[in-house]
Amino acid sequence: MTTAGTDGPGPNTLLPAEELPVGQELDCGSYQLTEQELCAFATQWDPQYFHVDPARASDSDFGGLIASGLHTMSIYQRLVVSAVYQRYDVIAGRAFRRVEFVRPVRAGDVLTCAATVRSVEPDKPGRCLVVVEGCLRNQHGRPVLRLELECLVRSRRATSAG
Amino acid sequence: MTTAGTDGPGPNTLLPAEELPVGQELDCGSYQLTEQELCAFATQWDPQYFHVDPARASDSDFGGLIASGLHTMSIYQRLVVSAVYQRYDVIAGRAFRRVEFVRPVRAGDVLTCAATVRSVEPDKPGRCLVVVEGCLRNQHGRPVLRLELECLVRSRRATSAG
Repeated sequence: MTTAGTDGPGPNTLLPAEELPVGQELDCGSYQLTEQELCAFATQWDPQYFHVDPARASDSDFGGLIASGLHTMSIYQRLVVSAVYQRYDVIAGRAFRRVEFVRPVRAGDVLTCAATVRSVEPDKPGRCLVVVEGCLRNQHGRPVLRLELECLVRSRRATSAG
Repeated sequence: MTTAGTDGPGPNTLLPAEELPVGQELDCGSYQLTEQELCAFATQWDPQYFHVDPARASDSDFGGLIASGLHTMSIYQRLVVSAVYQRYDVIAGRAFRRVEFVRPVRAGDVLTCAATVRSVEPDKPGRCLVVVEGCLRNQHGRPVLRLELECLVRSRRATSAG
């Protein structure tokens, strides 16, 4: 499990949009999910029986508890923020394009995160629209989550390109 | 704030796909976000400064702390599960189509949730692909989150339609 500190680099050391490594796959570390955490997250945010009730879940299509998709996305976010976004001059996330829950995530799984900046395009003056593609894989190397994020990152250019 | 119990109806009382109210907007209640919760969620899952550091956030584009998009999505999920999905015979979520963070969410905001089943289509035998459109609005009636979910719901038909 990687450590997600809340102290990123200061505002003066953050990378602007034009310095992001487009096309380079970035290793964002990994995270092991426990059954206690799986149930605690889902009890608070997604209390469907296949996330919170081991007995009923054992009779479900998955044969046991699976993690909430929101929990899986939150694990992805924690890893990518700590490894990548805290170094970028991010303004905010704007949208997820398609988010796919490719395979079930179970207690004990070790999820490894990779992210790639796909494109950086001028948006309004002083900022760019950045598209990031992300993936979590389990300990067997199989994808469990695939997503694309649109976010806004500060640019050093005062005006947008035409 | 609505109460999200973990005890939904039992397996015998759950609605199959063909009984879902297609096209009807469902009121899923509301939820008030505190600053403590906003920071606690983001410290664990999305520790970007504009979610966790009030001093630096006050100099950001938003002039103060804003909630993590994952937190906003989790609030949506809690409300829709408690009001709607716990009554349906859901197998699992499969994907979010576009998820839009339309406006910033701030501490103190009261978010009201609505969801509409947009379509129910046969998938594999015994199950349907259900598309649900969801929205969170703030206390000013303005949308802050819009999304579309694809999920699988059990069907009473043993075979899929052609």
